[in-house]
Amino acid sequence: MNNNVSLDSLFKPKSIALIGAAHTEEKLGGVILKNLLKFKGAVYPVNPKYSELMGLKSYPSARDIPEPVDLAIIMRPAAEVPEILRELAGKAKSVIIASSGFAEIGENKIQNEVMKIGKEIGVRILGPNCMGIYNPSHRLDTFFLPDERLKRPKKGNVAVVSQSGAILSCLLGALETSNTGVSKAIGYGNAIDINEADIYEYLAKDKNTGVVISYIESLSDGRKFIEKAKILSEKKPLLILKAGKGVSGQAAAFSHTGRLAGRYEVFHSILRQFGIREVDDFDVLIDATKALAFQMPSKGNRVLIITNGGGSGVLAADECMRQGLEVAKLHVDKTEKLKKTFPHFYGINNPIDLTAQVKDEDYVTALNELKDDYDGFLVIALSNVLGITERLPEMMKACRADINKPIVFHIAQSGISKKLTALLEKAKIPVYPSPEKAVRALTALLSG
Amino acid sequence: MNNNVSLDSLFKPKSIALIGAAHTEEKLGGVILKNLLKFKGAVYPVNPKYSELMGLKSYPSARDIPEPVDLAIIMRPAAEVPEILRELAGKAKSVIIASSGFAEIGENKIQNEVMKIGKEIGVRILGPNCMGIYNPSHRLDTFFLPDERLKRPKKGNVAVVSQSGAILSCLLGALETSNTGVSKAIGYGNAIDINEADIYEYLAKDKNTGVVISYIESLSDGRKFIEKAKILSEKKPLLILKAGKGVSGQAAAFSHTGRLAGRYEVFHSILRQFGIREVDDFDVLIDATKALAFQMPSKGNRVLIITNGGGSGVLAADECMRQGLEVAKLHVDKTEKLKKTFPHFYGINNPIDLTAQVKDEDYVTALNELKDDYDGFLVIALSNVLGITERLPEMMKACRADINKPIVFHIAQSGISKKLTALLEKAKIPVYPSPEKAVRALTALLSG
Repeated sequence: MNNNVSLDSLFKPKSIALIGAAHTEEKLGGVILKNLLKFKGAVYPVNPKYSELMGLKSYPSARDIPEPVDLAIIMRPAAEVPEILRELAGKAKSVIIASSGFAEIGENKIQNEVMKIGKEIGVRILGPNCMGIYNPSHRLDTFFLPDERLKRPKKGNVAVVSQSGAILSCLLGALETSNTGVSKAIGYGNAIDINEADIYEYLAKDKNTGVVISYIESLSDGRKFIEKAKILSEKKPLLILKAGKGVSGQAAAFSHTGRLAGRYEVFHSILRQFGIREVDDFDVLIDATKALAFQMPSKGNRVLIITNGGGSGVLAADECMRQGLEVAKLHVDKTEKLKKTFPHFYGINNPIDLTAQVKDEDYVTALNELKDDYDGFLVIALSNVLGITERLPEMMKACRADINKPIVFHIAQSGISKKLTALLEKAKIPVYPSPEKAVRALTALLSG
Repeated sequence: MNNNVSLDSLFKPKSIALIGAAHTEEKLGGVILKNLLKFKGAVYPVNPKYSELMGLKSYPSARDIPEPVDLAIIMRPAAEVPEILRELAGKAKSVIIASSGFAEIGENKIQNEVMKIGKEIGVRILGPNCMGIYNPSHRLDTFFLPDERLKRPKKGNVAVVSQSGAILSCLLGALETSNTGVSKAIGYGNAIDINEADIYEYLAKDKNTGVVISYIESLSDGRKFIEKAKILSEKKPLLILKAGKGVSGQAAAFSHTGRLAGRYEVFHSILRQFGIREVDDFDVLIDATKALAFQMPSKGNRVLIITNGGGSGVLAADECMRQGLEVAKLHVDKTEKLKKTFPHFYGINNPIDLTAQVKDEDYVTALNELKDDYDGFLVIALSNVLGITERLPEMMKACRADINKPIVFHIAQSGISKKLTALLEKAKIPVYPSPEKAVRALTALLSG
């Protein structure tokens, strides 16, 4: 297969054919067609039963498409896919096989046949059994999920790469809820041609992508994976979530993808050796991604915690210990200075405890005094006390620009927390609903 | 101090005095008074500057309260508290000292004086430096946080016990968001008299309380704590979140409460020895609490996972392994039977993979077939496929009544997930936004 062909035809096609287009969103081919209506280039639906579909002229077969296209999407039963592929010879640069019914259900023979034909006709293939591509800056959306069932995240700098379509949709749903925008989303499924490594290579050069997150069940080419993951992670943060870690998980992954997940311990130690970051679970992935989407990672592990709730500071300090972050003591002279500045009942330690008597500006005072002494900052602003107001986000925005180091917030769920969160995140300060989540996000920023 | 006096005067007072009442919610004494207006019994505000406060007759001093009250709340500076306590001799059965300024900022002398006076006059004291009591079935709310800053959870069966007022408010905010109701909430602060052990003893007998969660930084009486925690946890689930686990956390806890947290390892191993449950962090506590509030815990560790997203099933299986739950294989005869029942492309293993072609009733079919073979059930229903509808919660409600074993849901954030979650949780089936969170909640139900 010609690996030198750029994946631009896949990620930024100028024209698209959809084989298996349908007239109604009750069919997956209809959902895809609906999503393609947002696309700015030419779209050629193929369905022999219709002459028009959703306002577009429909073609009886792939052979009848009037011009060669950059991208063809196939949403027809597995048994028909080999023939469709042959018809696409010379007609398409890249193909997304969205349909399932291949190796993931033990149908290896037809998958091998498809792979062979793909090589013969010289197209790049994404899939089969895959979600395809979402590229908001190109208005490209090949998903077979309607928008009302999966609200797409806004445009942003996070590329989401997932072997599993289900997990891809879960990640996108969680990122959308988490106020984190995406540059590209790719579900690559059974990966008979284009795999995670090819995608990493493309994303390493993609200027719209600042962070890459990748869900992996199994690898088809471990050596290439490591090579491309290493190159990518030297350019931008790459976070990997590996599923199939234990015996049960591996059995589940095998049944799902038809490929062995391999020994997790080996995978884990190789990643570690090459400095590629791994996260433990879905929630950590989402929390870390928001932090890395909003701020630049940095070196160091000395953390300052500023809180207005003593207990929350303690929980945060505990999590810092678990994450290997150092809640380092304040310099003696700084302690003396802050003791003179603040009311006598504030706790001038690390965590700094501003108590329930806190005022917004106290955070700024503490940060300005200590910004040079620490590598990262956790601000806890429990917003149920009256001294925390909607002025805080504006103050923190200025503060953040000045400090220029990782800074994350924990705000517990309460009255004005939603408003504060929205304002802070507009200023690219990520906010988390528990102390431990905030610390884990800060850890992601400090592992740079 | 008379430990035989029941805490009913504290939890279910018939009459309340508030020393330090204020005319405006800009003052903490005003916030408390406002919250006490919901109380059905007599309320006596004390403030020498006013003859009336928020429509209630105000009294110049505690001495002037016209009748003995069950509960007196003090919200005056620490220095005034000893004198106020003396004035309350014979006037109050129990006292909440909400004010701060005691041992938590190094003012041990005044705290010791207050403790001594309390013993002399024979009252039970909650605090100082504490949030007090919220008892929705008694319309009692002594918090100094306004409702618009901390939305109270609805009435339910969870008692929340917290040394820290900040954490108490965070827990209540998170439980409210998590659709989990509370029976009582207690912030006990510096605990010069009533401590966690006294509260456990009371809650063990409280018929409105089905689950107790407890945030602890330090213990004043380790032996009594273990004794009462053991008795309580034999009657109903008790979940403990201990803060101050490491050196940083312990230093933070000391500065916050003026008490040494003690060596965490010792605490942890004693809890383990006595079969008292501990959770690792804030989020696990909230997730486990919802599960235990909705369902009865049970024995066993064999788990069945039914999913419509392969990847989500794999992540869940991985987390089961980490939590010590067994994703046990299906019996051969059940496998054969389900293979005949379901389409050939469904994955009949554990996890059962109903794929994106799932229909609501497939979950019921699988559960009915396998309900006797497993101890607990995780249902994953990714609601972005069209086969998952709002009929599912009703079906699951019937199913749950029939199975009568722990069953939890994971539904990823997407289009109709909020609606489905609300309906399922109305039927007492807890729903979580990630596979790992759902597994951890199921673990809490299976550690019974």
